[in-house]
Amino acid sequence: MRKIILSLLVCCITGAASAQNTADSAMIRKISDYILDKGAAYENLRVLCKTIGQRLSGSPGMYKAEEWGRKTLMAMNADKVYFQQCSIPHWVRGAKEEVRFVSPQPAILNVKTGKTTLQANTLEALSLGNAVGTGPKGITAPVLLVKNFAELEQRKDEVKGKIVYFTYPFKQTFIRTFEGYGDAVRYRGNGASQAAKYGALAVMIRSVTPALDNYPHTGALRYNDSFPKIPAVALGPQDAMKLEQTAAGIPMGNSVVMYLRTNCMMLPDTIGHNVIAEIRGSEFPDEIITIGGHLDSWDPAEGAHDDGAGVVQSMEVINVFKQIGYRPKHTIRVVLFANEENGLRGGQKYAEEAKKNNERHLLAIETDGGGFTPRGFSATMSDAQFARFSSWKPLLSPYGIENMEKGGGGADIGPLNRTLGTPVVGLEPDSQRYFDVHHAGSDVFEAVNRRELHLGAVTIAALVYLADQYGL
Amino acid sequence: MRKIILSLLVCCITGAASAQNTADSAMIRKISDYILDKGAAYENLRVLCKTIGQRLSGSPGMYKAEEWGRKTLMAMNADKVYFQQCSIPHWVRGAKEEVRFVSPQPAILNVKTGKTTLQANTLEALSLGNAVGTGPKGITAPVLLVKNFAELEQRKDEVKGKIVYFTYPFKQTFIRTFEGYGDAVRYRGNGASQAAKYGALAVMIRSVTPALDNYPHTGALRYNDSFPKIPAVALGPQDAMKLEQTAAGIPMGNSVVMYLRTNCMMLPDTIGHNVIAEIRGSEFPDEIITIGGHLDSWDPAEGAHDDGAGVVQSMEVINVFKQIGYRPKHTIRVVLFANEENGLRGGQKYAEEAKKNNERHLLAIETDGGGFTPRGFSATMSDAQFARFSSWKPLLSPYGIENMEKGGGGADIGPLNRTLGTPVVGLEPDSQRYFDVHHAGSDVFEAVNRRELHLGAVTIAALVYLADQYGL
Repeated sequence: MRKIILSLLVCCITGAASAQNTADSAMIRKISDYILDKGAAYENLRVLCKTIGQRLSGSPGMYKAEEWGRKTLMAMNADKVYFQQCSIPHWVRGAKEEVRFVSPQPAILNVKTGKTTLQANTLEALSLGNAVGTGPKGITAPVLLVKNFAELEQRKDEVKGKIVYFTYPFKQTFIRTFEGYGDAVRYRGNGASQAAKYGALAVMIRSVTPALDNYPHTGALRYNDSFPKIPAVALGPQDAMKLEQTAAGIPMGNSVVMYLRTNCMMLPDTIGHNVIAEIRGSEFPDEIITIGGHLDSWDPAEGAHDDGAGVVQSMEVINVFKQIGYRPKHTIRVVLFANEENGLRGGQKYAEEAKKNNERHLLAIETDGGGFTPRGFSATMSDAQFARFSSWKPLLSPYGIENMEKGGGGADIGPLNRTLGTPVVGLEPDSQRYFDVHHAGSDVFEAVNRRELHLGAVTIAALVYLADQYGL
Repeated sequence: MRKIILSLLVCCITGAASAQNTADSAMIRKISDYILDKGAAYENLRVLCKTIGQRLSGSPGMYKAEEWGRKTLMAMNADKVYFQQCSIPHWVRGAKEEVRFVSPQPAILNVKTGKTTLQANTLEALSLGNAVGTGPKGITAPVLLVKNFAELEQRKDEVKGKIVYFTYPFKQTFIRTFEGYGDAVRYRGNGASQAAKYGALAVMIRSVTPALDNYPHTGALRYNDSFPKIPAVALGPQDAMKLEQTAAGIPMGNSVVMYLRTNCMMLPDTIGHNVIAEIRGSEFPDEIITIGGHLDSWDPAEGAHDDGAGVVQSMEVINVFKQIGYRPKHTIRVVLFANEENGLRGGQKYAEEAKKNNERHLLAIETDGGGFTPRGFSATMSDAQFARFSSWKPLLSPYGIENMEKGGGGADIGPLNRTLGTPVVGLEPDSQRYFDVHHAGSDVFEAVNRRELHLGAVTIAALVYLADQYGL
């Protein structure tokens, strides 16, 4: 008898779970149908990219973008839209960089024909973010080519008075390009101070990209205050090859001599804002689910993938919930973070305020991997939370979420995790094309595909829906 | 004692399997490292697209491409390269299509401003493949807009003497775009004969694409011999909207009148070739693993994704095996199939010859879904074969193969499966962008990403390696 009761009980529970599962499937399908067919993310991205463009922290574009974000979120009928002020660094690039050969004239060998062709003296280059400039006279100096930090150490006695060029490439052999990025970006982040330690006048790196075109890729460096701050630039991939081949072709003991002029500088801190919009929770208004991307971008192009995509995908969560009439139980908060690229001040401010106001955060989700086909979510949370989170996979996999892994999150929601212990999740889109355009002149609206962008928004909105229904 | 022996036996077997697994992992990593870093597929695709371009069956481009394929495969040191002759249809497009409004002048309403803007009279259009032309005088007739075949049936009495336009759109809401394609392509395939049945003079369709640009997308139609053969064109997506909005804006009972001139025609069958290259098996030379894509393409652009990508990925299997020194046990045969697009004669011929020569085929793999990030393999084979095939997933998933499903294969290897019962597998790349460029002027080399293309080649070469090692 007891067995029968138990069986009936199991049946009931299974039946209820199954009915709930069907309802969840139907709601996620409704979210997907709306976004794929009528979602606003792609058109919002077009406006952001084409009428505003680059949004470097402290630049006029950043302030225009804040205002655009506020107005667009209000037009989506968010219950509340506001600015959260923070102090941000204010780095300016100044006039276009000049990087050229003084001697010899560069040449490239065609390996098939064996012929050497003389090349233009100039190189495509971008100062690294946060770097100092050379001053108006520029720097003329011999170039010391080193493969990596180990070779720099071996040859430290040769460094003084030179421009150090790190030839370290972005390795094509990693399957996930974020691993290749993590491997190579050390030279962008730390190369300048490592070389300055031994008396280098400036640093050049290969752009941190697997692309074979000639767009230079900028991005932040970090100076070590123990050593002089020296100028630093990234070269376009083809011009990096031009330099390496030219250096290889001159007699032993001689050096390529180059001229470098960069006009960037760090100004005093200024004011920026996280742009925040909310749908107030119907049952638990004091429990918050945050979804965000960063509104600032680097300046060579339009920041379409990095992170215009994340911005419009996050906004789409409010749009779709309003449009299909889904009333969340918890408060849904969309944050367009300030200053991710060269300071992370927006993310830090958001966590500080959350702590100060004793806010209760159920979950935070970040999308900052480009507007490509979604493939997974990575999460930092307790085992029990992860077990529940993972249990949603069957509901998400029809939309491309095949990996739900531990260990990720995002730069802007990291402080919330560290400060309040909030569980954090990062969207993991397909990464093959991301570093082709990341921080480069090629990161434009045209590089974003509407279906890929919208499918990413679908997966985020579906995850928010599930977290809102079941908590963690 | 018996238990102990059994345990030891299990340990030995597990140990051997584990060692083998490690060796397989290492070999696949070697394949991947080579292709991602030094593979020739992307450069081969550039040459195919940029020095030859379109390769419609029977066109000069097709013959140039056959010769290019032969020479390139020989340069890869294939053990044997040869042509397999087949008869192919020879359809020619002739001069550019002229499709324009006679009355009224088209206009588009801006829903935001409420203003109507007059538009150019001409529309971007492409004749459907295999279609007849209008003759030099063209056709001037009222246009009957119908949503679908059901509405055509309802309004069959209105069809006579008209140009029928099917407004049926490519539905954005399918997650896998091949489902949206399958749903909408019925109007391209059968629309002409369905309308001719009721006396239509010509047929127009919306291009079968989720893209929002204005490239028309061609592709084959099939005439039903019971009805007259009438001209048929696909309109660019924006011009399709122009027509629909204009028709919606004129008084009830009136019709849009259009002029249509197309210059295409079917010529007598001609000669084409499958281009075949082999590495002879070291242990089982009479057992064959086939890998192929189709060499022909539609004519509006370069057939870069469809199926230049599949061609160069297939060729890369020979390249990587030769370069890393892998000697297959079975004969590896790469086939660049003739005439997939408007006849499938190459695939049919390949199966006929295989049967005639009593060939033994272990497996056939096709890649014809574009050069996008690989996500899965779909297979048609017995349950026992599928069990072994699926057991390789842990070795393939690090390279992006997350779905190994029953039910697929490919058009060109279908005849081999039906004739000899050969197990067939199709590569399933991410499908979000495929139908944006499929059969359109936008299918150019620049739309292909090197890493995505090469990663697809990695997964195919890895699958060939596993099939060669373990059979099915």
